[in-house]
Amino acid sequence: MPSFSVNDRTYSPPDRPVAVLCLDGSADEYFDAALARGLMPNFARISVAGWRGFARAAMPTFTNVNNSSIVTGVPPSVHGIGGNFFLDPATGEEVMMNSSKFLRAETIFPHAQRAGRKVAVVTAKEKLRDIFASGLIEEGGIAFSAERAREAVPETHGIGEVEALVGPTPEIYSGDASLYVLKAGVALLESGRADFLYLSTTDYMQHKYAPEAPEALEFYAGIDAEIGRLLALGAVVAATADHGMCAKQRPDGSPNVIYLENELTEAFGEGFRVILPITDPYVAHHGALGSFAQVHLPAGLEASKVRDWLLRREGVTECHERALAARLMELPEDRMGDLVVASGRSVVLGRTPAYHDLGALAGALRSHGGRYEEMVPLLFSEPLNEAYAARVAGDVRNFDIFEIACNGIK
Amino acid sequence: MPSFSVNDRTYSPPDRPVAVLCLDGSADEYFDAALARGLMPNFARISVAGWRGFARAAMPTFTNVNNSSIVTGVPPSVHGIGGNFFLDPATGEEVMMNSSKFLRAETIFPHAQRAGRKVAVVTAKEKLRDIFASGLIEEGGIAFSAERAREAVPETHGIGEVEALVGPTPEIYSGDASLYVLKAGVALLESGRADFLYLSTTDYMQHKYAPEAPEALEFYAGIDAEIGRLLALGAVVAATADHGMCAKQRPDGSPNVIYLENELTEAFGEGFRVILPITDPYVAHHGALGSFAQVHLPAGLEASKVRDWLLRREGVTECHERALAARLMELPEDRMGDLVVASGRSVVLGRTPAYHDLGALAGALRSHGGRYEEMVPLLFSEPLNEAYAARVAGDVRNFDIFEIACNGIK
Repeated sequence: MPSFSVNDRTYSPPDRPVAVLCLDGSADEYFDAALARGLMPNFARISVAGWRGFARAAMPTFTNVNNSSIVTGVPPSVHGIGGNFFLDPATGEEVMMNSSKFLRAETIFPHAQRAGRKVAVVTAKEKLRDIFASGLIEEGGIAFSAERAREAVPETHGIGEVEALVGPTPEIYSGDASLYVLKAGVALLESGRADFLYLSTTDYMQHKYAPEAPEALEFYAGIDAEIGRLLALGAVVAATADHGMCAKQRPDGSPNVIYLENELTEAFGEGFRVILPITDPYVAHHGALGSFAQVHLPAGLEASKVRDWLLRREGVTECHERALAARLMELPEDRMGDLVVASGRSVVLGRTPAYHDLGALAGALRSHGGRYEEMVPLLFSEPLNEAYAARVAGDVRNFDIFEIACNGIK
Repeated sequence: MPSFSVNDRTYSPPDRPVAVLCLDGSADEYFDAALARGLMPNFARISVAGWRGFARAAMPTFTNVNNSSIVTGVPPSVHGIGGNFFLDPATGEEVMMNSSKFLRAETIFPHAQRAGRKVAVVTAKEKLRDIFASGLIEEGGIAFSAERAREAVPETHGIGEVEALVGPTPEIYSGDASLYVLKAGVALLESGRADFLYLSTTDYMQHKYAPEAPEALEFYAGIDAEIGRLLALGAVVAATADHGMCAKQRPDGSPNVIYLENELTEAFGEGFRVILPITDPYVAHHGALGSFAQVHLPAGLEASKVRDWLLRREGVTECHERALAARLMELPEDRMGDLVVASGRSVVLGRTPAYHDLGALAGALRSHGGRYEEMVPLLFSEPLNEAYAARVAGDVRNFDIFEIACNGIK
């Protein structure tokens, strides 16, 4: 099969179908809990026949950031998506980065399509579709979301009549929205419509349920069944996550929130803009609270002074000025605040109590964004060749997954 | 049963035997690999019947540091053991912290013994025995090491004739040294000599073998068999690790070392003292290379200047001045350098190439000490009551293990 090169990586996919899964919010504990109960027999089997371990995600550990890295093979410093949104310094406005116009690197998909693969990209949330579809539909590929499956038409999605192929469009706040993504992958393979898949789920279930919750266990059993179908269709299956998931609560179970904008205003006066780049149109399951924030300072205030103050705040684990944060977290400097803040395993960062509707939380607060959601599972259904076995043993990234799935299979 | 209180925690152990295991260097991947191959049936069973998840270790992620935290229930800032050794500012000498005289907090063991428990503490390496035994032998408890099992005598160890009870003293550089610790625990329970156990193994196997290596798999199968025997004797079994373990290698498999003393001298001139607190008398398996260092600066050099320089060095992930490091890493300020440095998942810190004998490494370089070995497994054989179920869902620590094993069992 022909190779193709994108963003300084060369991909030589095997003749067989390739299915890369990004299982949103899948902290390793979810697999452990389901595996221990015998609910993921396919995952168990390929973790022995192939390889299972941990990979390092991109910071901040959010969905758009990491999905963009996975589909381009480069860190946020290169692809430009350092959060779900950012404050545009030119306009002072908060800008959602749901559109491919913010993406500064090509995705691998149009290249794979031009190299002769039948590419299909399925995402749970519509918000990621535009980024994934960038340049792909024009080349003859397929891209649609579970959320708007019924709206897919050949001109803009490379496919129509998705409901006839996969089933009725699911409710986005459900485990079904994610299972639908995997079922769509199975149907696309089975029907011969695609042989190079990227299937990206949503983390509604993980925000809502702990790993041992019956609902989570049933959900992962459902994921395993679809993995089994992909394997039965001859696919090389590779899976990772965009980020982990931790309970953000005090020992008594209550939400553990630092209201940054409040505290900074109290200490230094008005004029702070705290950007929480987890914020997106789907906030019900995390209340826009994550373990990462960008802070824009009032004019005239020295950044190092605020940094030193924040680093003394219990619960804050990292705070860097822009340039250093860009290096340590591989972020695009022109889309950042003056300071970057990350918080501890059980701590989230907010703006003000009024801004966040904790009452809207479905249950306990479970979220992500910081370092404690950085290490994510990585799984390949086949043994790796020598070069890539050494790669995965070291500091492998979740956004190496396409390269390894293409080049690393023995 | 009577309760006891130590270092602001109260312990109310159940009537049943309690066995707390510190499985040195047990990154979660070791369990995953053995579990997927059906080699840890007891672990699998109790992870469902009880609770399995992750806990956060103390920084730096070294053995003495974390074992001292586990046996006292407090962070290094309180118990004083922030590494295997430190540079004494008063004398300018490097001082090993193998002795209980460096411990600033009482262990829970003499208190448990006085409360009516029959306490036995078994460690693989002799280096930890003095810390664990502190105050215990006088109260009638037992403490010995696998390494010097044959030397144990009642006057100083609370027990003699260990070889008759457990078997011949094992070679310290072996998996057997660790299995011997667990076998000793089983024999002590079985013979009625003890009912409150702390069993602390050594990480020789984990430094040497990756999780999927047949030797590692066999070792964990052996651990599981002993866990089964402890359970069969009616014990509440709780297990954690002092730290994880990562391959410290470049993508090509070669060791990934930053020679800090060299680089700092080149950049700023002579006079640096780089302390690698992983260093101990047993260096063959890690070459004294870990992902953490204390740096003492030459007189007159500004700490923030060196910090900013280090933070620009690829592979360095954290660098803080003493006071801030003490806060962010819970370290004892009077036993630290001017700067604290941590390195990435696949990167270790060294002094000079001449100082480290990479040729002495048994195989690939696998080590620990930094943040990427901070999240460790935590396992309880029984379901947890409501209060402790909320505790373990949040930012639970590996040094909470005795409290949870005593108070948290339903």
